Amino acid sequence: MYAFGVDIGGTTVKMGLFDENATVLDKWEIPTRKENGGEAILPDVAKAILAKMEEKGIVASDVKGIGVGAPGAVDEQGTMVGGAVNLGWGVLNIPEILHQYINVPVKANNDANVAALGEMWQGGGKGYSNMVAVTLGTGVGGGIIIGGKILTGATGAGGEIGHIHIEDHETEECGCKKKGCLEQYASATGIVRLAKRRLAKDDAPSVLRSGEVSAKTVFDAVKAGDEVAVQIAEQFGNYLGKGLAAVAAVVNPEVFVIGGGVSKAGEILLSYVKPAFQKYVFYPCGKAEFKLATLGNDAGIFGAAALILKG
Amino acid sequence: MYAFGVDIGGTTVKMGLFDENATVLDKWEIPTRKENGGEAILPDVAKAILAKMEEKGIVASDVKGIGVGAPGAVDEQGTMVGGAVNLGWGVLNIPEILHQYINVPVKANNDANVAALGEMWQGGGKGYSNMVAVTLGTGVGGGIIIGGKILTGATGAGGEIGHIHIEDHETEECGCKKKGCLEQYASATGIVRLAKRRLAKDDAPSVLRSGEVSAKTVFDAVKAGDEVAVQIAEQFGNYLGKGLAAVAAVVNPEVFVIGGGVSKAGEILLSYVKPAFQKYVFYPCGKAEFKLATLGNDAGIFGAAALILKG
Repeated sequence: MYAFGVDIGGTTVKMGLFDENATVLDKWEIPTRKENGGEAILPDVAKAILAKMEEKGIVASDVKGIGVGAPGAVDEQGTMVGGAVNLGWGVLNIPEILHQYINVPVKANNDANVAALGEMWQGGGKGYSNMVAVTLGTGVGGGIIIGGKILTGATGAGGEIGHIHIEDHETEECGCKKKGCLEQYASATGIVRLAKRRLAKDDAPSVLRSGEVSAKTVFDAVKAGDEVAVQIAEQFGNYLGKGLAAVAAVVNPEVFVIGGGVSKAGEILLSYVKPAFQKYVFYPCGKAEFKLATLGNDAGIFGAAALILKG
Repeated sequence: MYAFGVDIGGTTVKMGLFDENATVLDKWEIPTRKENGGEAILPDVAKAILAKMEEKGIVASDVKGIGVGAPGAVDEQGTMVGGAVNLGWGVLNIPEILHQYINVPVKANNDANVAALGEMWQGGGKGYSNMVAVTLGTGVGGGIIIGGKILTGATGAGGEIGHIHIEDHETEECGCKKKGCLEQYASATGIVRLAKRRLAKDDAPSVLRSGEVSAKTVFDAVKAGDEVAVQIAEQFGNYLGKGLAAVAAVVNPEVFVIGGGVSKAGEILLSYVKPAFQKYVFYPCGKAEFKLATLGNDAGIFGAAALILKG
């Protein structure tokens, strides 16, 4: 038996063919055609799967199912209920549309949740069943796994930890229109915000004063011992640790798995988050471990396949 | 078939006999004997159940099981793993001990979680399956139900929302030794803290300046139109709304069910929490409803019975 894992992004759709042992047999991408409300995206996905089946000599009865991750709020029935602005989609049922082309089981969920499931299945969270995946990218995303299952939430917005209110004194608006969200400090753009504010505060010397300021240059400077960069990393760590302590008091996970572009800084990033987490966490929740995500951009296709292959 | 619901508290153990239709046929209490590490508590429970069975002519094969709620962190196997200081208990397995006296299935969980399940089964959360129960008593407790099941957490501390860090500028310690926990403002004692600080700030007239200050007198004064009391209620609402907005971003519930002694103030309490919640919540999570708990002190025995009778 085989499963397909499909990770729909704003630019490309990543796809993977898996066997039942979680081995990825093939992976490839197709462009995400967003014109006309993204009406071609799911038909394109179905056609790509049918073409791959023909190429590999796989018949429908050999396919256990297709798992799909998509950027937006997806409910338990696989209906995109909102938030898929990056695809041009309104409300639509993902399994229903794919079933017009191919008659195998289809399951869909939010892309961040699916990536979390992937990390639990074959990545940084392997061996755990209560996990919070934290994606530090352009924004801060999250995916929560409880007892091995995605916590989808009432409106598909479970695990949206980037929008926990964390700072009462913020004056700039978050993308969500509120002020003081975790995402405003712990994302790649958030780190740049913290860096620019710190650099503007005084004239303390820093390598960050020349050249581009990014999450990467900040953590590179931290590794080089730049004192200003260390202060920025401490601020970042304090905000993220405070936010994750709140998450821990709610779902009491075994492990936090930190991924996304910012996490490429590596273990040094965790060294700023863990002490802050301990500062704020309710002690019975303080045993939570911190791991780095390991699947990178493949977390989505792994997690999508896990929707089908895992339990 | 019958089920027993057992709610172990620091002073009394509340017990209920239920039929399969969730009707409570009998309820009674026994004292909680805490001496010698609370070693008599579970044997007392078993004996009380056996006596009730004899009284009612019920044999073991007619008993579907015994559900138990206990104050502390209880893991999925029913082991009290810690925090049961009010009972004198260390680590012990609740089903194992009860099985020494009576051979029927036993399930145990934290008392706040069990009360949450009770409210979902037969109380303010009836008809919902994704729910957060909030208990505003001496402290602030919580219980989270996802897909009809208790979110226990890795160490039995799921739903401990009273210890979400919510205020960076607190100088007093919470019971948990951290500073700025939700519990420090939204519990009965927290409301008294807010009231005393407000009264000390200036000489504004208030009925609260004479007589005892308690959560009840504050909300009574709010109902009487006392301006200072209204300001205290707004502060309380702001803290609780902010905390519950964080919870909503994590688990995206359909409903919050507010119980505990403070909730006796009634709907007026919700009128201070809901606007603050909307101020802070991530909009896809903003549809969560607010209800008052309806089972009062019986939530524990109902929820304990639900551990056995529900799914």
